Amino acid sequence: MTEASPSFVTELIAQRGNAAASRARLDEAIARADALEATLHAFTYRPEAYVEPDACAPLAGLPVGVKDLIDTIDMPTAYGSPIYRDHRPQADAAIVTKLRQYGALVFGKTVTTEFAWRLPGPTVNPWGHTHTPGGSSSGSAAAVGAGIVPLALGTQTVGSVIRPAAYCGVVGYKPSYGSIPRDGVHPLAASLDHIGFFAQSVETAALAHALFVAGRPEAIDSAQSWQAWFAPLASPPRLGVVRTPFDARLQDAQQANFEASLAQLRAAGAEVVEIGFGADLAQIVDALQVILRVEAWHAIGPVSEYHRAQLSQHMQALIDEGAAMPAARYREALALQSALRAESAALLAGCDALVSVPAPGAAPEGLDDTGDPVFCAPWSLLGVPAVTVPSGWTARGLPLGLQIVGAFGEDLAVLRTAAWVEAAIGARRDLPLDARHGSAA
Amino acid sequence: MTEASPSFVTELIAQRGNAAASRARLDEAIARADALEATLHAFTYRPEAYVEPDACAPLAGLPVGVKDLIDTIDMPTAYGSPIYRDHRPQADAAIVTKLRQYGALVFGKTVTTEFAWRLPGPTVNPWGHTHTPGGSSSGSAAAVGAGIVPLALGTQTVGSVIRPAAYCGVVGYKPSYGSIPRDGVHPLAASLDHIGFFAQSVETAALAHALFVAGRPEAIDSAQSWQAWFAPLASPPRLGVVRTPFDARLQDAQQANFEASLAQLRAAGAEVVEIGFGADLAQIVDALQVILRVEAWHAIGPVSEYHRAQLSQHMQALIDEGAAMPAARYREALALQSALRAESAALLAGCDALVSVPAPGAAPEGLDDTGDPVFCAPWSLLGVPAVTVPSGWTARGLPLGLQIVGAFGEDLAVLRTAAWVEAAIGARRDLPLDARHGSAA
Repeated sequence: MTEASPSFVTELIAQRGNAAASRARLDEAIARADALEATLHAFTYRPEAYVEPDACAPLAGLPVGVKDLIDTIDMPTAYGSPIYRDHRPQADAAIVTKLRQYGALVFGKTVTTEFAWRLPGPTVNPWGHTHTPGGSSSGSAAAVGAGIVPLALGTQTVGSVIRPAAYCGVVGYKPSYGSIPRDGVHPLAASLDHIGFFAQSVETAALAHALFVAGRPEAIDSAQSWQAWFAPLASPPRLGVVRTPFDARLQDAQQANFEASLAQLRAAGAEVVEIGFGADLAQIVDALQVILRVEAWHAIGPVSEYHRAQLSQHMQALIDEGAAMPAARYREALALQSALRAESAALLAGCDALVSVPAPGAAPEGLDDTGDPVFCAPWSLLGVPAVTVPSGWTARGLPLGLQIVGAFGEDLAVLRTAAWVEAAIGARRDLPLDARHGSAA
Repeated sequence: MTEASPSFVTELIAQRGNAAASRARLDEAIARADALEATLHAFTYRPEAYVEPDACAPLAGLPVGVKDLIDTIDMPTAYGSPIYRDHRPQADAAIVTKLRQYGALVFGKTVTTEFAWRLPGPTVNPWGHTHTPGGSSSGSAAAVGAGIVPLALGTQTVGSVIRPAAYCGVVGYKPSYGSIPRDGVHPLAASLDHIGFFAQSVETAALAHALFVAGRPEAIDSAQSWQAWFAPLASPPRLGVVRTPFDARLQDAQQANFEASLAQLRAAGAEVVEIGFGADLAQIVDALQVILRVEAWHAIGPVSEYHRAQLSQHMQALIDEGAAMPAARYREALALQSALRAESAALLAGCDALVSVPAPGAAPEGLDDTGDPVFCAPWSLLGVPAVTVPSGWTARGLPLGLQIVGAFGEDLAVLRTAAWVEAAIGARRDLPLDARHGSAA
């Protein structure tokens, strides 16, 4: 266990009203983006200039990356598709309005795959330029991973926050389904779409939770209020491990890192127990595939009517499969989703959270595929909160992570557990593309 | 009880493949709109010309009005707001794609209040030009009421289908919440918004149900398949009547018509029983008001950030009230909604459906207010299916109606009950603005 790093949020609170500090933070982000973007390609758009940060606002001009699936009135919003190349929405998305109300700056729009499905953009993994950053929130994961911005918005329908966060060595946080309004976010599958966050620490993810999920800006009124809001766990957590039908896909490096992480968690005092999950995970993933296809057909099918030639083969296939899906299968899948969400707390079998892998391994080589989301899929169907915590590196220096999952609506408890795990694991997160970075696992 | 009118759907089926019949139906709609629109103002836009109807498609070129809250790629879509005056969506809404796939024609865009809230457009009531047609789906209700189109799309968040249908003397059908994808429909309050239909008969509403809710186009393959799908009730229904905290608002004409209608239903063989509703209706309407305000703030608040001066005072107040609403009240309201929806069948106390008034009375005088939606509000919160059935006229010749409400997901059963009620009541629906129309009640 390493030393706790200085708290980002208490620093933000201490600098409230300090215009020079706000400006310096922004300038640092600009300088880093200018230096890295020619290689990284995390952004689809960055403005020429920014309004002067409001140093007195709660977020004091914090530069935030916004996935280009999310509407911004003052920046082009293309949803990762040439069909919307010149699209300028008439209003911000609700989450962007909130960002600005708290005094954050939209630093730029980040690369998304086509309508948050499979066709990737040009972004590379900041830890290995021939590797995918994951997707669909590719640019947000890479921008935080490369240290350009401390926070970025993404969305997850299957595994589009938790997995790219792991691939890029950052914290990912997918709140409980429905806890952030999605007005102004292009849908992929309405019953599965979540807004989520990429952050440089669990604490920063908890900041996003306080402001954008819980609606409690007073949590950052002072260092004391923050300590009270995001208090450390009183005692080590009880963590459940679930064997899944997908474990055969696990790669050796991920498997070894996962076992080593569990050993570290036990050494730090956690009770780590293997539990039987009270629902069929393969059936859950099947239900997700059904809902995804039918609702993607609802959401993108109308676009396909007039612009099919501009949609990828991936997207055409998804829509066609949705159009062909029997209505009864869709209804059954939605019914399973409702039933499981209502009993999500019971599925934890008395544990504070589940701990699992976020992906079969580190980011795959190549930029034409964003990796396998299957280890995230069950939690997207259930809509329960999930957090990625970095847990080490492969021999080639690519990040690995853990996924912490909790009961529906218990986001703060999951984040507190994730912060405990983060401290216990202590994976170093020096920045990539700099002189040196950690080599662990 | 009058003679059953000839079946619109069996006629549509019999004319399948008859290009002349399809064309004649369209020409009749055009001629009627041309004659009436200078007074009625039901449409915001009608195209100069239409593609030739596909007479072989299931809907065989049926002209359908589409509320201008719903995206159309080939017609301007302004959501009832000057902010979107020149807006041209890049794709149709999912429901419009479905309409076109079944061979219907978008006859035109119909007037909506501002973002489906209170500020009315110019539409008048076809039965009395100094009276409101109701809202927010003002133009769709009026266009069907005036006999221009046999079917039109609306939306209901509080009472925007059921109430204007009653005011305009037509059938309104609000399906179970979530049963029609809302992709491409501007939100007002995401947990309450429903797509619904205006139709010249319950049978036509059942046609909409078969195609757009149940996804069963084979129901109209033949007259036999239609009779099997939309079979009459085997025996008279058991209907529940609920006294509500809002009954003091009832006007004499509505009250008298309601009592007379119940007598007609009993005379036709229905068992009509007063039941105690197992939930507090005032609390339900309070919860709806909370959700509406918070979610309207989510949906329209971002627009307000840049275009507040172009929003009505009504809308500004709604958004401001949402912004000020404590988060805990919103969570409690959503929890009440989930709990009640899950037990909606039990709330019927063994009845096939509830029967109630759709509004305190006939359409109020004046065009600056669209009337009181309180009698629809509980069923919008619960998301249960509801149908307006015309039930007579006031002494001044304005329509009155009944509202038939059923259990969540039991739309077909509710429509079958409504068809029985329609036949039992037998309110004549000669067209307004013609030489004579019925005077009943």
